[in-house]
Amino acid sequence: MPETLPANSVGLVTPQTLQFNEPLNLQGGKVLPSYELIYETYGQLNAQSSNAVLICHALSGHHHAAGYNSMDDKKPGWWDSCIGPGKPIDTNHFFVVCLNNLGGCNGSTGPVSINPETGKLYGPDFPIVTVKDWVQSQACLADKLGIKQWAAIIGGSLGGMQALQWSIDFPDRVRHAVIIASTSKLTAQNIAFNEVARKAITSDPHFYEGRFYEHNTIPKKGLMLARMVGHITYLSDASMGEKFGRETRNKAFGFNFDAEFEVEKYLNYQGERFSENFDANTYLLMTRALDYFDPAADFDGSLEQAFRKCLSKFLVISFSTDWRFSPERSEKIVDAMVEAGKDVSYAEIDAPHGHDAFLIPTPRYTELFTAYMEKVARECQGGSQ
Amino acid sequence: MPETLPANSVGLVTPQTLQFNEPLNLQGGKVLPSYELIYETYGQLNAQSSNAVLICHALSGHHHAAGYNSMDDKKPGWWDSCIGPGKPIDTNHFFVVCLNNLGGCNGSTGPVSINPETGKLYGPDFPIVTVKDWVQSQACLADKLGIKQWAAIIGGSLGGMQALQWSIDFPDRVRHAVIIASTSKLTAQNIAFNEVARKAITSDPHFYEGRFYEHNTIPKKGLMLARMVGHITYLSDASMGEKFGRETRNKAFGFNFDAEFEVEKYLNYQGERFSENFDANTYLLMTRALDYFDPAADFDGSLEQAFRKCLSKFLVISFSTDWRFSPERSEKIVDAMVEAGKDVSYAEIDAPHGHDAFLIPTPRYTELFTAYMEKVARECQGGSQ
Repeated sequence: MPETLPANSVGLVTPQTLQFNEPLNLQGGKVLPSYELIYETYGQLNAQSSNAVLICHALSGHHHAAGYNSMDDKKPGWWDSCIGPGKPIDTNHFFVVCLNNLGGCNGSTGPVSINPETGKLYGPDFPIVTVKDWVQSQACLADKLGIKQWAAIIGGSLGGMQALQWSIDFPDRVRHAVIIASTSKLTAQNIAFNEVARKAITSDPHFYEGRFYEHNTIPKKGLMLARMVGHITYLSDASMGEKFGRETRNKAFGFNFDAEFEVEKYLNYQGERFSENFDANTYLLMTRALDYFDPAADFDGSLEQAFRKCLSKFLVISFSTDWRFSPERSEKIVDAMVEAGKDVSYAEIDAPHGHDAFLIPTPRYTELFTAYMEKVARECQGGSQ
Repeated sequence: MPETLPANSVGLVTPQTLQFNEPLNLQGGKVLPSYELIYETYGQLNAQSSNAVLICHALSGHHHAAGYNSMDDKKPGWWDSCIGPGKPIDTNHFFVVCLNNLGGCNGSTGPVSINPETGKLYGPDFPIVTVKDWVQSQACLADKLGIKQWAAIIGGSLGGMQALQWSIDFPDRVRHAVIIASTSKLTAQNIAFNEVARKAITSDPHFYEGRFYEHNTIPKKGLMLARMVGHITYLSDASMGEKFGRETRNKAFGFNFDAEFEVEKYLNYQGERFSENFDANTYLLMTRALDYFDPAADFDGSLEQAFRKCLSKFLVISFSTDWRFSPERSEKIVDAMVEAGKDVSYAEIDAPHGHDAFLIPTPRYTELFTAYMEKVARECQGGSQ
């Protein structure tokens, strides 16, 4: 147990859970009669409730974005590099909220929760949820927390999609939307990779059509494969090359199918670890939410029209080597915002890490993000607008 | 049954098989006591045996590169667009040979052949074969066919690796090596994709450690997944986008996990078809041969040194949207050849199809390829050099 935590950490945090008994009408037509959301908060809400920042997580993320849940934790939350005193999302200024999304497997209602109608786990019966649904549920959470308007809503990847959807669905509840390494819709290639991941899970004989809990098993190999495919798309060819190259585990080739190259060993390890800690049904739901996301679809395919009624300001950030959601995709968002006459700042950050760059504190990224958030913080001091 | 075949087709062809009883010492240390190679030929060998061209196939290719094996065939051989009278590899001038590689599943000795030592199918006991081993076996085939020197050895992708290895291992037996959409070694990302494909196959419970034949089954789902992953890497993001975009199968989303998008349906179909026609153990072997390929490794990592003793001329072709083996990788080959003082022509072809572009007859590609091969043909008329 470490005796002290880093000085720029938000420190020890305890997740909280809120119960919602107002039914949630989902985009797919189903209704969730009640649900719970688990969340963490960092920093203090000011008297005007004008300094709240919502962090939206990506595919495999959750509510534990910063700090430590226990002195025994080996690692802090998943975005600790960006959240804390003196960090881009500075908890000396902001009251930061991060929740586990509906359908998740880290404490919010999802496939591993009890379905009140059957008394059993939801499993595959948990309804398909979309980015729009998440935003609805997050708005309910904001209501309960007394946050009428977020100073900023921030997210990377799938998290950025939520920030985007918020600015469209609740124009007067978002002052700034920060959209990092994201896209306004998946390409055919993105959907194809998701489909491979889903097929890997559903064709695992331990999947049992999603009812694997009842068989006391998990589709471990399918989930492992899904994560391996995903992981490749999160890294750039160059960063993988730098990390592993063609390094072999042993000096001479074994001429067999054991993991010969370091990259094989790494991928297997990542896949294995993930498969023991993530729910297969949640993985399916999250990838489907990605596939379906397309806010322009509600506006005859016009992204510009989608942004017309937005009242927030925008910061859009992309990374040069991100081939999952490439800079071109961010530029499309920015172009549509400009056409719609919105206030948008855009930066393509030169970083070697591929899509994962949004989680890695490179200097220009950190500086730019910090400068923007300082501006947001100054506005908060002026009170809610 | 079509009454006629296209005028520029090599027409009806019958595969032939040759038996080799001279043991083949494999790079991995094992010995193949005897083996068979199946091959097809198109065009006529001239009196000086100076007009022979060897076609080397890629991962899932085989000996049937051009023409039709039966009047009932719906499609011609896999490279019919490039082989035939008046085509880049013009059978009015060349005697073209294409074989199924050792370890293959289309007629040459491989996992689905009988192991003479056990009287059973080789299955997973078939030894790992490398590009170097293939080149050795192809040299034995050339001997039997009376071909001392190939006018050209041509291949795309993994086929290009064989052409490259030939020029290094048998300098005086290759006049021209044509290396299309290839690379001198895989990157970590390439290896990673291969490892996902292999893991998909080996973790299918119907794989039975490669002895699935004995259980009267095949690891269909694993092979399907492997092909789906591979297929994504063969196409460019743009070509997938053009082909499918975000087109949905039904007008409205179903909010379920059925194939909603055209690209999902397509991938599933491709994977399914492939899994019924390809051997899982062969797929493992072929991907491993790709991983291991690195001719510079025998020369202290210097590709330039590897090419020093080459006597052939080279044509290297890459495609602008190929992200599997990008133009940069071809440029590395070309740079090393130039440093080694070799005669090399290089072209990056602007084509939208990604890695698959080497199979698709776009105008500039066809013209350039044709022009080069016409030069090779003119040399043949001057006799063997």
